[in-house]
Amino acid sequence: MIIILRENPEQKQLENLVSWLKSMGLDIHYSKGVNKTIMGLIGDTASVDMDLIQALDIVEKVMRVTEPYKNANRKFHPQDTVVTVGSGENEVKIGGGNFQIIAGPCSVESEEQIIEVAKAVKEAGAGLMRGGAFKPRTSPYSFQGLRGEGLDLLSLAKKETGLPIVTEIMDLSQLDLFEDVDVIQVGARNMQNFELLKELGHLDKPILLKRGLSSTIEELLMSAEYIMSGRNQNVILCERGIRTFETMTRNTLDLSAIPVLKEKTHLPIIVDPSHATGINSLVKPMAMAATAAGADGLMIEVHNDPAHALCDGPQSLRPEQFADVVKAVEAIRPFAFGVQQ
Amino acid sequence: MIIILRENPEQKQLENLVSWLKSMGLDIHYSKGVNKTIMGLIGDTASVDMDLIQALDIVEKVMRVTEPYKNANRKFHPQDTVVTVGSGENEVKIGGGNFQIIAGPCSVESEEQIIEVAKAVKEAGAGLMRGGAFKPRTSPYSFQGLRGEGLDLLSLAKKETGLPIVTEIMDLSQLDLFEDVDVIQVGARNMQNFELLKELGHLDKPILLKRGLSSTIEELLMSAEYIMSGRNQNVILCERGIRTFETMTRNTLDLSAIPVLKEKTHLPIIVDPSHATGINSLVKPMAMAATAAGADGLMIEVHNDPAHALCDGPQSLRPEQFADVVKAVEAIRPFAFGVQQ
Amino acid sequence: MIIILRENPEQKQLENLVSWLKSMGLDIHYSKGVNKTIMGLIGDTASVDMDLIQALDIVEKVMRVTEPYKNANRKFHPQDTVVTVGSGENEVKIGGGNFQIIAGPCSVESEEQIIEVAKAVKEAGAGLMRGGAFKPRTSPYSFQGLRGEGLDLLSLAKKETGLPIVTEIMDLSQLDLFEDVDVIQVGARNMQNFELLKELGHLDKPILLKRGLSSTIEELLMSAEYIMSGRNQNVILCERGIRTFETMTRNTLDLSAIPVLKEKTHLPIIVDPSHATGINSLVKPMAMAATAAGADGLMIEVHNDPAHALCDGPQSLRPEQFADVVKAVEAIRPFAFGVQQ
Amino acid sequence: MIIILRENPEQKQLENLVSWLKSMGLDIHYSKGVNKTIMGLIGDTASVDMDLIQALDIVEKVMRVTEPYKNANRKFHPQDTVVTVGSGENEVKIGGGNFQIIAGPCSVESEEQIIEVAKAVKEAGAGLMRGGAFKPRTSPYSFQGLRGEGLDLLSLAKKETGLPIVTEIMDLSQLDLFEDVDVIQVGARNMQNFELLKELGHLDKPILLKRGLSSTIEELLMSAEYIMSGRNQNVILCERGIRTFETMTRNTLDLSAIPVLKEKTHLPIIVDPSHATGINSLVKPMAMAATAAGADGLMIEVHNDPAHALCDGPQSLRPEQFADVVKAVEAIRPFAFGVQQ
Repeated sequence: MIIILRENPEQKQLENLVSWLKSMGLDIHYSKGVNKTIMGLIGDTASVDMDLIQALDIVEKVMRVTEPYKNANRKFHPQDTVVTVGSGENEVKIGGGNFQIIAGPCSVESEEQIIEVAKAVKEAGAGLMRGGAFKPRTSPYSFQGLRGEGLDLLSLAKKETGLPIVTEIMDLSQLDLFEDVDVIQVGARNMQNFELLKELGHLDKPILLKRGLSSTIEELLMSAEYIMSGRNQNVILCERGIRTFETMTRNTLDLSAIPVLKEKTHLPIIVDPSHATGINSLVKPMAMAATAAGADGLMIEVHNDPAHALCDGPQSLRPEQFADVVKAVEAIRPFAFGVQQ
Repeated sequence: MIIILRENPEQKQLENLVSWLKSMGLDIHYSKGVNKTIMGLIGDTASVDMDLIQALDIVEKVMRVTEPYKNANRKFHPQDTVVTVGSGENEVKIGGGNFQIIAGPCSVESEEQIIEVAKAVKEAGAGLMRGGAFKPRTSPYSFQGLRGEGLDLLSLAKKETGLPIVTEIMDLSQLDLFEDVDVIQVGARNMQNFELLKELGHLDKPILLKRGLSSTIEELLMSAEYIMSGRNQNVILCERGIRTFETMTRNTLDLSAIPVLKEKTHLPIIVDPSHATGINSLVKPMAMAATAAGADGLMIEVHNDPAHALCDGPQSLRPEQFADVVKAVEAIRPFAFGVQQ
Repeated sequence: MIIILRENPEQKQLENLVSWLKSMGLDIHYSKGVNKTIMGLIGDTASVDMDLIQALDIVEKVMRVTEPYKNANRKFHPQDTVVTVGSGENEVKIGGGNFQIIAGPCSVESEEQIIEVAKAVKEAGAGLMRGGAFKPRTSPYSFQGLRGEGLDLLSLAKKETGLPIVTEIMDLSQLDLFEDVDVIQVGARNMQNFELLKELGHLDKPILLKRGLSSTIEELLMSAEYIMSGRNQNVILCERGIRTFETMTRNTLDLSAIPVLKEKTHLPIIVDPSHATGINSLVKPMAMAATAAGADGLMIEVHNDPAHALCDGPQSLRPEQFADVVKAVEAIRPFAFGVQQ
Repeated sequence: MIIILRENPEQKQLENLVSWLKSMGLDIHYSKGVNKTIMGLIGDTASVDMDLIQALDIVEKVMRVTEPYKNANRKFHPQDTVVTVGSGENEVKIGGGNFQIIAGPCSVESEEQIIEVAKAVKEAGAGLMRGGAFKPRTSPYSFQGLRGEGLDLLSLAKKETGLPIVTEIMDLSQLDLFEDVDVIQVGARNMQNFELLKELGHLDKPILLKRGLSSTIEELLMSAEYIMSGRNQNVILCERGIRTFETMTRNTLDLSAIPVLKEKTHLPIIVDPSHATGINSLVKPMAMAATAAGADGLMIEVHNDPAHALCDGPQSLRPEQFADVVKAVEAIRPFAFGVQQ
């Protein structure tokens, strides 16, 4: 951490700062220029509160040199994390060379629907099934999901197909209902719901953490750190588009985040091209691009009948379209970044 | 609502759509061009799910003509909402010509601190006091607030000064502790925590709803609508900066949101220049600008001793600086937009 | 085009509007709701000025249904445009199934440098060479390029290697110097330099048009339309990252723009992963992802010796790194979107 | 400037870097941590090319501590710049306590129109008149301005009213026509047209430099520096909204830029609420807010007859509305930031 002092700092305040920093076990190196004095802090600065220092009148600027996350940091865990989901013949692994496709409808609507879609996506090559029971909707007047009943239907579909379940939690109070869920999803809008993250950190179940619409890559890693600082190391990161000025797509899919995250962290990274683009015809090219860039998996919306969907957006694929995407992705995968020879 | 159909729509699907729309009591007007057919829906479209329609193969685009919010909509409630907080001699009103300043430290740290700051801001002219007990922090290693103990200290300060309390809730499970709190704040990161919003909709207590960092003005109103569709009509909106590419300030304070919101809704709108800018020296000019633009109030961070603050960011003012801001704001207020003769 | 009128429009103004619209040969369909009247304009609306209509007191909103560009619009030119550059054995084609890599240094610095790099990138598989002679630099104190001398050195390198030249023009006054240049590049900062675009529209030389940092996809197409409405139909579009809040990469590479543009226009689309990311290690994965998404080519910065480069940013590759990228891209290309069987 | 080295830097490269830095007259202070070595550069670093250093393999990060602009920097010119426009009884001053309103139509359309508007805005209190002769339009099919003829009409209006002229240049080739223009405006799209800026730096005429839609405050100052490094010190900065995700207003007016710029530079700062918001009803509150925040002036669009305007956007005010804005602004001004006692 580097502290740049204002010109002519008040001596008493400076002494207070120095003794406070030393009390945290940090060494301080000084670099005095004509106008500026720069202090370099040596030691474990991850728990030093930058804002606290920035608040001081004598400080012009504080900059981190090392990353503020530890458990998620590849520097301290050079090996890729492999997240194992489910067990027995339905066990799947994500990360460390294991690539998985998660597929299913936006919302669980009926037993018939979820079982039909689950069978179809399994047949096409999906390793996990998704389906929303609790739905975060911008409008209170939109369909809010089947909630508990939706989770029951997902369990039925799992019994039928063996596919592990990925579904979203919206509030801590729902946690008891998630026993049969294999991967708990934290949606983009909850990426900084810190109380929820802390609780999920006490579980052993894998957590799929989606990047917030306006969250930086570092903030995504800090949210993963919340979970991991609890105990739970099974975190899967998911890029799903960020909010920008462009309106032609619902969000802007930030595929550079894949190789950036690969450098910064050992956690698996998957991509959701359905929600990112919001447009059916863009799911395939973006799934292919994400795969080429080295993603560890994909999350894709598939429905059986759009005309009757309760919340499926325009980004959903029909099963036969999904099967086509899987084939295209599988053709790319051997040549993907980090995989190709 | 306007639906633009794709060229040569499949007739069966089109009939399905038309009969579904009619079943919701909507009238349909057609406008057929050379290439495009446009359907205008007449009637109450607030509960029509745009995504549903957009999902259809025969639909190219769906556009709303009327706003998707009702309770928050000024069209249906032309009169300004006046939110009353506290009672007796400490009663304060916000909105409809009533201007209030909410002030206090970022975090409650100690009895001494909160009482000292509360007295100082009351003396300077604040009508309500703020102070964080539950603190949303990006890093799990940063101070997370005194939590329950912090709420107790706020109650003490209220007893001492009479100032009503504004403080943030981070999770539904904390609600029981908020009995003595006068205004429950929903922070920017929780603006779309819909489960929380729904529960707060069942209370009578005023809710201060902060705009999310990447939330549009319409999304802010839809989140207010979540609360108001419950029952609770006492919602105060708060602009606190949005995330943009500019890095010189922490966020970009969107003051245009004030007059835009004034047109769209009858709810009071306040501004938080402290968090928006993140810079001490910008609080005063932005407080003045917000006042001139017609804000119904301000929320300003004030601390007693920055050198010992546990989380006060660089945006906090000392009590004497705050008093100076209050004076400047009071000088502007008579000439403000919507107030001046 | 759809015009939504305000409630109770002033009759005289409405009549003026209607007769003005009719004078442009447009038909008008009306759709009267309880509160709103909607006018649908039928006919050629590309030259109707939306702002003009929006300015009227009686108008609430104007929306386009059809795209405002014609020459660049795939609807009117379903076939892919193939841009031919150079001639004889050095002729290269871009678009319509032809994939090209443009490579070279950020700035031309010396005869030795440009010839060495040109030979290296040709050897590795580049079809065109790039090199900056006129350099747009944020600071007036930074190196501004060798200018005319730089163009001469590019000509030497072309003589030596046969590679066609791609280089940037910064102002109309430089045009005379570009005779030996094969593709004139319009940089991101000049994407809306309309006077420049108009002049380039009178040439026959291919134009490489880079998307502006904060330009929408539609604005990019409108700038292409400026060139094409002159006469010059040889426009190559280039996605090179947009400005967002994320700071881990220099810009955010918007790869969704590739399939979106493929739908909207017949023009070739290439991607510049070097400038978009600004980070050496991200060039390869993003080049691979762009290829998988269906790009018609890539533009990649290559230098011979970074330690002595005058402006090469951290995103430049050494020749052997570039050769590795070319191999990875060539492996992906047969399976790319729009190419794979 | 601070350079953070990668771990175990290659010694030969490090020596090269050190001797290169020393050759530029810089002193280097070292701060060696457990993992990182940090170099602090002491001396005049404004002309040191950060990108160059960042490009080196041994460098992890480079950070500026001092600003990269000199002529525009308040540190070296603590006194406010006062720009004088026109002469004799029509002389007006901007900056250093002098507040001016620039008003007029978006486009010059006819002699009658420009003279009528010029008289009206003068009567209402404007100190300068604006009017576009060369118009940057997104579409090649939109009205492009009367060009040379428009400049002639502005001269007529100046003769009639005495109001100095502010109008936009779009290309260097137009410069000869600007002799009678008092303030040359560089539009948002040309803020980084560096060739144009350099040429304007050789004039004595005041330049009104608008902030680009996606330009940071620092980039705005660097563009001012381009002009000032030529020779011309008469630069007026103009905030006119930046591009964000919010769609309710055309752009997001960044009023925090006013006090930020006041700290960083001695140049006058004005605000254009018309273009920023794009909405007639927001011009007044935003003009008032900009004034309260300490702006040195305003630029406001005024037309005489919207129904016949050729390019006036929906943000234009009628003369009587403008007069009302001027009154509201004049009431605020004595209490504005930096002005109030």
